[in-house]
Amino acid sequence: MQYKIKGEPIRGSRKVYVDGSQNSMRVGMREIVLSTGSCPVNNPDTFTVYDTSGPFGDESQTVDLTLGLPRIRQQWIDDRKDTATLPGLSSEYGRKRLNDATLDELRFGHVCRTPRKAKDHPVTQMWYARQGIITPEMEYVAIRENQRMELNGGESLMGITPEMVRCEVAAGRAIIPANINHPECEPMIIGRKFLVKINANIGNSPTTSDIHSEVEKSIWAIRWGADTVMDLSTGSNIHETREWILRNSPVPIGSVPLYQALEKVNGKVEALSWDIYRDTLIEQAEQGVDYFTIHAGLLREHIPHTVKRVTGIVSRGGAIMAKWCTVHQQENFLFTHFDEICDILAAYDVGVSLGDGLRPGSQADANDAAQFGELKTLGLLTQKAWDKHVQVMIEGPGHVPMHLITENMEMELKHCFDAPFYTLGPLVTDIAPGYDHITSAIGGAMIAMQGASMLCYVTPKEHLGLPNRDDVKTGVVTFKTAAHAADIAKGHPGAILRDHAMSKARFEFRWRDQFHLALDPDTAYAFHDATLPDEDNKTSHFCSMCGEHFCSMRANRDVRKSISQS
Amino acid sequence: MQYKIKGEPIRGSRKVYVDGSQNSMRVGMREIVLSTGSCPVNNPDTFTVYDTSGPFGDESQTVDLTLGLPRIRQQWIDDRKDTATLPGLSSEYGRKRLNDATLDELRFGHVCRTPRKAKDHPVTQMWYARQGIITPEMEYVAIRENQRMELNGGESLMGITPEMVRCEVAAGRAIIPANINHPECEPMIIGRKFLVKINANIGNSPTTSDIHSEVEKSIWAIRWGADTVMDLSTGSNIHETREWILRNSPVPIGSVPLYQALEKVNGKVEALSWDIYRDTLIEQAEQGVDYFTIHAGLLREHIPHTVKRVTGIVSRGGAIMAKWCTVHQQENFLFTHFDEICDILAAYDVGVSLGDGLRPGSQADANDAAQFGELKTLGLLTQKAWDKHVQVMIEGPGHVPMHLITENMEMELKHCFDAPFYTLGPLVTDIAPGYDHITSAIGGAMIAMQGASMLCYVTPKEHLGLPNRDDVKTGVVTFKTAAHAADIAKGHPGAILRDHAMSKARFEFRWRDQFHLALDPDTAYAFHDATLPDEDNKTSHFCSMCGEHFCSMRANRDVRKSISQS
Repeated sequence: MQYKIKGEPIRGSRKVYVDGSQNSMRVGMREIVLSTGSCPVNNPDTFTVYDTSGPFGDESQTVDLTLGLPRIRQQWIDDRKDTATLPGLSSEYGRKRLNDATLDELRFGHVCRTPRKAKDHPVTQMWYARQGIITPEMEYVAIRENQRMELNGGESLMGITPEMVRCEVAAGRAIIPANINHPECEPMIIGRKFLVKINANIGNSPTTSDIHSEVEKSIWAIRWGADTVMDLSTGSNIHETREWILRNSPVPIGSVPLYQALEKVNGKVEALSWDIYRDTLIEQAEQGVDYFTIHAGLLREHIPHTVKRVTGIVSRGGAIMAKWCTVHQQENFLFTHFDEICDILAAYDVGVSLGDGLRPGSQADANDAAQFGELKTLGLLTQKAWDKHVQVMIEGPGHVPMHLITENMEMELKHCFDAPFYTLGPLVTDIAPGYDHITSAIGGAMIAMQGASMLCYVTPKEHLGLPNRDDVKTGVVTFKTAAHAADIAKGHPGAILRDHAMSKARFEFRWRDQFHLALDPDTAYAFHDATLPDEDNKTSHFCSMCGEHFCSMRANRDVRKSISQS
Repeated sequence: MQYKIKGEPIRGSRKVYVDGSQNSMRVGMREIVLSTGSCPVNNPDTFTVYDTSGPFGDESQTVDLTLGLPRIRQQWIDDRKDTATLPGLSSEYGRKRLNDATLDELRFGHVCRTPRKAKDHPVTQMWYARQGIITPEMEYVAIRENQRMELNGGESLMGITPEMVRCEVAAGRAIIPANINHPECEPMIIGRKFLVKINANIGNSPTTSDIHSEVEKSIWAIRWGADTVMDLSTGSNIHETREWILRNSPVPIGSVPLYQALEKVNGKVEALSWDIYRDTLIEQAEQGVDYFTIHAGLLREHIPHTVKRVTGIVSRGGAIMAKWCTVHQQENFLFTHFDEICDILAAYDVGVSLGDGLRPGSQADANDAAQFGELKTLGLLTQKAWDKHVQVMIEGPGHVPMHLITENMEMELKHCFDAPFYTLGPLVTDIAPGYDHITSAIGGAMIAMQGASMLCYVTPKEHLGLPNRDDVKTGVVTFKTAAHAADIAKGHPGAILRDHAMSKARFEFRWRDQFHLALDPDTAYAFHDATLPDEDNKTSHFCSMCGEHFCSMRANRDVRKSISQS
């Protein structure tokens, strides 16, 4: 395992920082360097874009994975004086793992860490927002969302100010997932008025992957633009794997605690209990997980609606809870214990992502009674969580045909009171395994245009197997594309400016600028160079697609010249 | 060059034929063989899908490229007795190439072919339709569109009958591109009430490709589902290349005659003339090209609107004609000679695809005065063409942000009187070179859902270089996905049934059936087998994505069992 990783920005760019109002606040961004030397029209020397890579994208830094990332939020958390350092881990399982000497070798333990917890009141960003407090986290995201637009040629700051961020968080229309035990995290915001975000899933499975490859996948995913990473590990040593990921993650980490709870009872659904689940929540909250997917909205009364479905229940969490309810003839314990769950989350500021256990797994099952019945329950739970000042987002879609997408968004806004919508795709057809990053990017772009705040990526391996490193990159870049298309359609000035800069570079034959402004410069270079590898061709006024005589961009020159002379 | 090609259906399927009402009519389809042996619920043994592969997808056939495909339409054309075999080629250029002995080696000349031409009246499918005649071509497409739905479990024939096809063609709402000199072509229909079609562009460029590789690309494109192929060659020997492609193409071939006309004057736009263009039209019409893209709607008055655009004119044809108008200070000769053009097209039944020379090349230029000014002119030209009984489709989009797509479709329907809309993408962002098959599949699916009848594919190499064989496949499968998603959203029962069959196979762990029902079985197999290569795993009740305990599909079993027992 390689422990020291030198920061490396995406080709053609470099890390820059914008200072906040407090000494310790430096908001990282990625500055694309433009080579404007010989071009006909004046262009800026640089273009700044949103950056999720953290220190891994900063060439002046070297990250020692055994030490973890700098704790940029620690001072802010300390300054609030509303949390206490605990004497040790509160969860039984956490202590057991810590005291198991056979795990020493695996453990991220080179730095001694004890968790923090709220003292007297909730310590969620929502609680602060409702008190009228603008936290450093809120200021950070306001700066971050603006992407130095004034330098990119933008005039407006689109109204994203720290106060506006506070308002949105207070109203529940946006969340800032930021566990007090994940001080390494660079704050980011998920909400309809902000840039559309994307999540990448990683995690080992019972048969594959080790700790190192999961940490590596996570770093790889954020390099290409994942705004959050969900660790969905279901294999061995998931407690230790999660610790390594968290200590080295500059983006919020999400998880599905139910998976680990099930592992603790050796995969026997009937053996699951509130006690085991509760201990798992605390274990993960104290490690620093920023949001939990909790399938509390799947009720016993919904289950019969799934029996006639073509694909039944396809959410893993949903299937587990449905089975539990059925075996025990009891209501979903995540629903019955939801208030207690919220009390735990509020003490660490873990956001809740209300899981859609009944999302449709086929076109045929979309928008049915099971799906929308659960969605209405998620609305009830949203209000309960908000009563406890817990930040909430709502999970949605799955497989949904295009003409039924709008109804999903409308129902979510109506029944869940404008809480941010976090959707998987939707996949707009079932018949393209191997291309499901595309089927879901189509639906994802559409639902994000209509208001979904975060899209969960889908890789080409969906329905077929565990994604590898290449699949992770393809999934992330594909979903950045979908999210960006939605940002444009929503009128986000920062998004529009980047397309403008790209198209101008294209028209002016600034090939390198095109490559560097692209979401994936490496692929753009490789594809161009496959037919015209010479350095000369990086400045030529045509490419191999049309050749010289048939280059329309080139012909424009003559037209414009003639018109200006006549 | 390999001249004999043994037919090979896509993995897991075989060619079947449905007889028409006339002895000689056999409509080819692809029958997917389902292995329903051990599954819990009864399923059909086969599922029939639309097939564009012609004899190349029939394992009982071997195609000798030097002889070309069987002329399945020849008898139908002969029976109409309204065309005459010409004594020789009418075009000067065609004769020159034929008499050039140095080309003998390249020439598709093993079969002596003389062209046919109308005798006394237009011989277009539109003319017949307006006379109340149901041609064999119309019957063929009606059978073809229905995909043996009754065997697939569908109840309705969705009203697609030969008479309904005739009606749509007569009204100009649909076209059947079928040149009388392309008797090898299997009839297909492009129109809003039918399955959404896709086009694949192939063609050499001045620096790359030979005849063989273009023929190969064309066969490869139709294997994966291209409904038409446009030969956009701009390199050497394009007359001979086109002949090889046509004689071996079971799908309609489109072209942009302007490209070849420009080659004939060595790329000097100022030297282009009506005479050279006219000769090119006749040359290609007599070879059998089924539709021509003609940029007749770009008028001098539109050109000043492009000057302030970010990316000016990006259509190759558009840029050529704008330059010609500017240099000569004259109106576009394709516009001024449009009636003569239509007379030529009507004599061979070449459809006209009215080119969008002013389509936007960047988000910034979408839906502007240049684009919509030209679109209105295309409406005028549509009426002129219809007056001559020429079949028409309208080309559209390019780069258009999602929120401006609907206006494009509405404007087209309004100004072009419901003529079929044939769009490139649209690409919904400019910043994803290397992923533009995806940016355009997003826009393509959306505009097709709203009524576009055919989508022009975009490959991952768009904006970067000439696509290779892999890029062609990726482009075709991606656009089949987008078109299919639109078919579902439009409520096409045949499309919906396939998703249903796929999802049922998925839920029943019939892995092979899933792979075979997929748009690309080879990729589905490869991705699955990357982690679970053993044959056993083709029947296991989980895959490597979630593993055994976390397989939601598996958990459903238990839930359903419990519910049915309780």
